[in-house]
Amino acid sequence: MPRCSRPTGRAPCLGAAPPAASPAGARTRPRPAGPSFAELAAVYGARKMEAYGRFLALLVSALLVGFVSVIFSLVWVFHYREGLSWDGSVREFNWHPVLIITGFVFIQGIAIIVYRLPWTWKCSKVLMKFIHAGLNTIAMILVIVSMVAVFEYHNAGNIPNMYSLHSWIGLAAVIFYSVQLFLGFAVLLLPFAPVSLRRAVMPIHVYSGLTIFATVIATALMGITEKLIFALRSNPAYSESPPEATLVNCLGVLLVIFGILILWMASRPYWKRPPEENAKALLTTGGTPEGTEAESTMTDGGNADKSDLRINSEAARKQNLKLDEAGQRSTM
Amino acid sequence: MPRCSRPTGRAPCLGAAPPAASPAGARTRPRPAGPSFAELAAVYGARKMEAYGRFLALLVSALLVGFVSVIFSLVWVFHYREGLSWDGSVREFNWHPVLIITGFVFIQGIAIIVYRLPWTWKCSKVLMKFIHAGLNTIAMILVIVSMVAVFEYHNAGNIPNMYSLHSWIGLAAVIFYSVQLFLGFAVLLLPFAPVSLRRAVMPIHVYSGLTIFATVIATALMGITEKLIFALRSNPAYSESPPEATLVNCLGVLLVIFGILILWMASRPYWKRPPEENAKALLTTGGTPEGTEAESTMTDGGNADKSDLRINSEAARKQNLKLDEAGQRSTM
Repeated sequence: MPRCSRPTGRAPCLGAAPPAASPAGARTRPRPAGPSFAELAAVYGARKMEAYGRFLALLVSALLVGFVSVIFSLVWVFHYREGLSWDGSVREFNWHPVLIITGFVFIQGIAIIVYRLPWTWKCSKVLMKFIHAGLNTIAMILVIVSMVAVFEYHNAGNIPNMYSLHSWIGLAAVIFYSVQLFLGFAVLLLPFAPVSLRRAVMPIHVYSGLTIFATVIATALMGITEKLIFALRSNPAYSESPPEATLVNCLGVLLVIFGILILWMASRPYWKRPPEENAKALLTTGGTPEGTEAESTMTDGGNADKSDLRINSEAARKQNLKLDEAGQRSTM
Repeated sequence: MPRCSRPTGRAPCLGAAPPAASPAGARTRPRPAGPSFAELAAVYGARKMEAYGRFLALLVSALLVGFVSVIFSLVWVFHYREGLSWDGSVREFNWHPVLIITGFVFIQGIAIIVYRLPWTWKCSKVLMKFIHAGLNTIAMILVIVSMVAVFEYHNAGNIPNMYSLHSWIGLAAVIFYSVQLFLGFAVLLLPFAPVSLRRAVMPIHVYSGLTIFATVIATALMGITEKLIFALRSNPAYSESPPEATLVNCLGVLLVIFGILILWMASRPYWKRPPEENAKALLTTGGTPEGTEAESTMTDGGNADKSDLRINSEAARKQNLKLDEAGQRSTM
């Protein structure tokens, strides 16, 4: 059953005791030549705080940029474009940008990095999978409603559907997203698929997830371009840079920044959720999983600081190799 | 000096002898319990062929898609849009899509994956850095010419510059690309930067390179959308889906496919160029670097097939860790 509790001895969050201070950890590893354990522990603790602070700063920035994007989309439709309703008019169309930015960009972005939040590492992997799948399902529902809005608006005004590049790539993104969601449920969430199938599907699931997310942002930028050209034909024209154009251009820039922040957080190996089974296995043998945690959260991208962290990680690394081979370790 | 020669005993390409058959390699590693070396060698050789074939198939697909994109851009401007010239008319503008697709998309894409081509692994890393930097410099020159073309066309026709989201994000991409190129030269190509700086810059260089490439494709899609709306106002309108609209929509789809293929090839760890110093070090001690090569080229994304390959890779892995710490190993 999904659970969210903190295993004894596991310390994924800020303020946790450094691993080198653990008697169990010390017992199972030879003392390295050079700096003492106490010195390494101090360096390790300081770097852990710094890395955690960096992650939090990025997360807060991403949430802020995403939230401001949603606000900008609402200001756009309410202040400049007649607001929202469901009557076949342009007010029905206006649901399209609002729901796409809220669901397909913001919520999908959060769903992508949900495994990376350090305070969720004490929760079971199954629970996190449900949250990941749940957020993506909410996004999918919002996307479907936003598509219905735009098709109904087109049909009510005898505007052709599916002629633009925006519509072609957007529809392809929605189709791939639904396939991704279905396969994620069937193969990775439900417990029926064999390990070999999970193993084959996981890297494709991760890459296609990130690619769909990036494609959605590109499609949103095309949609913004289309809408500004159509809506600002004259008095004022788009080329005269009226306030609406500046606001919505800024919205487009925010979407790009949001995408860059989310993809950076999702692609750093040192912020990867440590394998749950690893922690369990190490706890039962008297070890601690700090090594894994260190590799996941503490090092910076330039391989800096790895040398002293690696001292504590050999047991965890060996365990990881076994889990990798069994396809048990998430790549997110 | 840059060189391109094949070190004795190194076999990065198709048809190479499997590593386990190497007497030198066999001498330095204990025989594993389980399958014999001959059996492992047969499995290893078969998988190597398969992985190499898969890489070639992807590479050929990417080259084909990129090449067809360039052809489509030429068909667009010559068959539908009055061709090319340098006279301030729309024919000068036409250089913009042609040079952006050729330089900023196609050549930049090739520059990104140039380290991944297995037959270049026998060439020195410095030579490959020069090729990578050279291709990006060519792309940069084409981008600058394409920017001059569009500014001159706008100025000649009194069309405002820099009002659209396409122009905002496009200019930002060009600025970041030039910073990327300058820092790449100064820090990663020239031999003056300290190891700690290279170490700090490398992951940012890789991520920003891939992000700029994806952003360029998104910007191209916005540019295509803009141009089709402006050029196809009526008789025929874009919404009537004339052949030009279909052709250029297909061009946009091809650009997305090209981006997906390049980013997939660039982000698979098992197609990463093995570290040169690793090969040298192992050769001088009588070992062979097949383990590294195996990890770079043979495994598939699902961690499948790693177990038998890893048997041969322990020496290379240890060497890699040292090089990682020294910041000597490319992440591309």
